[in-house]
Parts: sequence; C-alpha cells; structure tokens
Amino acid sequence: MNKSALIAQIKQKESFLCIGLDVDLAKIPTHLLEKKDPIFEFNKQLIDATHNLAVAYKPNIAFYEAYGIKGWKSLKKTINYLNKNYPEIFTIADAKRGDIGNTSTRYAKAFFEDLNFDSITVAPYMGSDSVEPFLAFENKTTILLALTSNKGGLDFQGLKTNTGALYKNVLKTALTWKNAQNLMFVVGATKPAYFAEIRKIVPNHFLLVPGVGAQGGNLQEVCNHGLTKDCGLLINSSRGIIYAGNDINFAKAAKKEAFRLQQEMKIILNENN
Amino acid sequence: MNKSALIAQIKQKESFLCIGLDVDLAKIPTHLLEKKDPIFEFNKQLIDATHNLAVAYKPNIAFYEAYGIKGWKSLKKTINYLNKNYPEIFTIADAKRGDIGNTSTRYAKAFFEDLNFDSITVAPYMGSDSVEPFLAFENKTTILLALTSNKGGLDFQGLKTNTGALYKNVLKTALTWKNAQNLMFVVGATKPAYFAEIRKIVPNHFLLVPGVGAQGGNLQEVCNHGLTKDCGLLINSSRGIIYAGNDINFAKAAKKEAFRLQQEMKIILNENN
Repeated sequence: MNKSALIAQIKQKESFLCIGLDVDLAKIPTHLLEKKDPIFEFNKQLIDATHNLAVAYKPNIAFYEAYGIKGWKSLKKTINYLNKNYPEIFTIADAKRGDIGNTSTRYAKAFFEDLNFDSITVAPYMGSDSVEPFLAFENKTTILLALTSNKGGLDFQGLKTNTGALYKNVLKTALTWKNAQNLMFVVGATKPAYFAEIRKIVPNHFLLVPGVGAQGGNLQEVCNHGLTKDCGLLINSSRGIIYAGNDINFAKAAKKEAFRLQQEMKIILNENN
Repeated sequence: MNKSALIAQIKQKESFLCIGLDVDLAKIPTHLLEKKDPIFEFNKQLIDATHNLAVAYKPNIAFYEAYGIKGWKSLKKTINYLNKNYPEIFTIADAKRGDIGNTSTRYAKAFFEDLNFDSITVAPYMGSDSVEPFLAFENKTTILLALTSNKGGLDFQGLKTNTGALYKNVLKTALTWKNAQNLMFVVGATKPAYFAEIRKIVPNHFLLVPGVGAQGGNLQEVCNHGLTKDCGLLINSSRGIIYAGNDINFAKAAKKEAFRLQQEMKIILNENN
C-alpha cells in the first residue's frame, strides 16, 4: 500500500486509529480457548467488529513468537484474513528487526513477501545498511524507532551529542538514506512535549504513536504538535481496546472503545481542516 | 548453561570458535534440496562434522524466518538436535530482539523456553526495561549489541556524547542493569583497534565477535587486545565455514576450515597461559 491510499482511508473513515493485536492467551475471554486457534479467533472477531473505525492493525510479533510455530500459524492466518477481507487496511508487523545488510533483506522478505505486511518496525542501532534493505521494497513502509514510550526509552535515545539528542540524529540521518520516502517513525505518546521538536526535523513523515491509553499518553496533546495537513499520525491503542471486555461480548466492548477514540479523532481532524 | 561450563568447554576443546548457521537454500549443495528438510539436513551434517572444533553455534534467525513456518520448523529441529546430541555446546539465537518490558519477556520466553537456546542477541536502543527481561532468566545469557561490524555500524554507535561514543555508553550503562552478570556483548572484528578501549570498560565479560573471515577481520589482532584470563572471546565464522564446500563433501570442507581456525586458536590460547 502506498501513502496516498493510507491518507484516503484516513479521510474516508475519519480516523487515524491503529489497533495493536498483542494477544495474550492468559487475557483473552476463556470461551475462546476451546476453539482450534484461539489467537486467530480472537483477532478475527476484533477485526470484524472494528475495521470501520481503524485504518491500521499492528500485531506485535513477540506475542506470536512466544507461542512458537503455533503462534506463527496464528499470525499468518491473521494477516491473510486482513489482506483478503479488508485490503484497504494498512498492516504493521511490529517486529523491531534490524541486522547487517544481507540479513536485513531476509527479514524484509519474511514480513513483506512471505507474510505480505504493508510495513514493519525496525531498530536503528546498526545504521544505514541495516535499514536500507527494508526501504528498497516498493509500496512497503519501514517504520524506524526514533523515540519510544517505555521507561528506559531515554537511556540512550536521549543522550546528548554535538548535533542534538540521539533520537534527533536518528531522524536526521534516516532522511539521507536511499528511499527515505518509504519511512515512518515511531514516536511515543508519553512524551508529547517532544512532538514540536520532532516536526521541525520531519515535518511531513507519518509518525506511529504508541502509548495512548494504557501507557498514559494524551491524544489531544499529541495532535496539537504532531498533526500535518495529511494527518501524519497513526495512533496505536492495544490493551485499551482489545481487552476492553473479557466475556462473550468482548468484540462489542472493543468496538465501543474504538468508536470512542474514532469520535475524538473525527473532531480533531475536522478542527484541523 | 552458565559461564563456567562455557569456559571449561573452551579449555577442553582448545577452541573459542562459534559457527554461524546462516542457511541460504540458494547456496547449499544442490543434492540436499531433495531431502525433506534441506535446512536441517545441512545443519545436522555441519554440526556432526564440526562439534569437536566449535564451542558454540549461532543460527541467525532472519535466515529461518525468511522461509516462514517451514523455516521455524527447521530452526526448532536444529536447536533440538544440538541440545539432545551435544548438550555441552553453547547455543546462540542471533535474533537482535528488543521491545518494551512485557513484550521483551515474550521474546525471552520464545528463545529461552520454547526453543531452549542458551543465549540471544539483543538490541540496546530501547534501554533498560527492554533488556532486563532477558537478563532475568537464570543460566541464560543476553548478548547485547555494542559495536557491530557492518558498514553503517558507526552511523550511530560512533556518535560522540559528553561521556564518550554511544557504544561506550551502551557498555557502561548495561553494567548497571539488574543481573548484568548474565551479559555478553557483540563487538565486530573489523574494528580491532577498538578492543583495547572496550576492555577498559568490560575487562571480564565475554565478547561475541563476528566479522572474522568473510567480513575481513583478523583473529590475531582481535585476540591481542580482547583475550582475558578466561579467554573472554567467542569468534564467529559463518560463510567461511559453512560454504567452504559446495558438493557432497561440504561437511568435510567445513570441518577442514573449522580445524584451521581451531588450530590458530589453540596456539593463541597456549601463548596466553
């Protein structure tokens, strides 16, 4: 999927919501555990209930990998289901991969070709040749970690260098890489004060923003500094939506929570026009 | 496996060789492609031929992930084969994972529990709570990227801060984390001049050193500054060994190359005593 298709979807749905499919078998409604593939069943019902309210889904790969080959099968069924039934949806493999050049190409093939995701999250520590192999794929998006929302996020990302904090160097340097137009960046919502600074460096690139909801970030604050004329934001919510309910009506509860966020987004988008 | 078992193995085998199992179906001998699981068959024959000469095996997970569920099955068979037949071997999942706290725990479970690797490589960009969940596992080792051997390695790792280059900050900071005794570090062999500096910060920790051979690093130079009284080095070679031959005798060719390296290591270890 290219960027203009994503922007069209945001306009049509009046939403820039991304739903994180971080499935924990210990947290899903117990009646699903009797199903043949509880993870896929959980995802399928969530997707069917919320696809009109969200523009993107983001399975965090760790949650699937933790269940071994069974988990990979559930992941494959989930992405296939999305691609077949809701091809307009932007899909994100939250994998945080990155390795030396020829090895990164392997990861890119795994997620862009074998699984046919639209995008993948990538870690920047190994530099240009660890990221450019992902950027080389046409109509695919590479979402580079810049400023993450976790407790230890600033341990290194906030380190001061001659040319600003490390995360600013990551943003600036990434813009010089081949096919930088295929980039988005991860910027955590728990640090809304940073968005103004970040927009000075990347005024137009889309930002994937985790940390709204369970991690404590505030949607309006993020939008104040983060929105662009094309929206330019994907706001992710995982636990707040997918575990909104815990019984047979869990998908309805998820839909209700997704709707609440989409309504907030609709107002923000209209104010921004 | 704990550190003293690894050190005992190094002394017994007079080797600190790690063999990288980075299997590319386009490069393995063609007669293997007729087998039911060519990747596993290739690994099995390599392991059987070289296990007396190497102390560690390191599959790079990207090469398995690229083949989807089939690749994960080959990986699982490979690690099970190693654990069953050569339990003395130190196994490394070269996965370069890392995510926010509860998610890193998922990755740790995937590699330490489901697959039962002794160790995993981890990327530092997300800081303390992305690495400590790996460190929390007893008798397991977390191998943190410090200074990598690829072309873009210094893009960020070499950035100067008030407290030295970024990679030095990673080393220093990691030592302050909970269970830091379970750490090793990745340091590329193509930069042997850095080893003296690195040993000032981590005088005793084991370093996993890729880049000897195909990537151009020199074994003797690395050892001049990197060796400790317990050896303290694991030198990885992948392509130079596993693709040493390309016909029915490929495992013999691999053994010959592994033997050549082991003999160099034996001399170095004896000089060091």
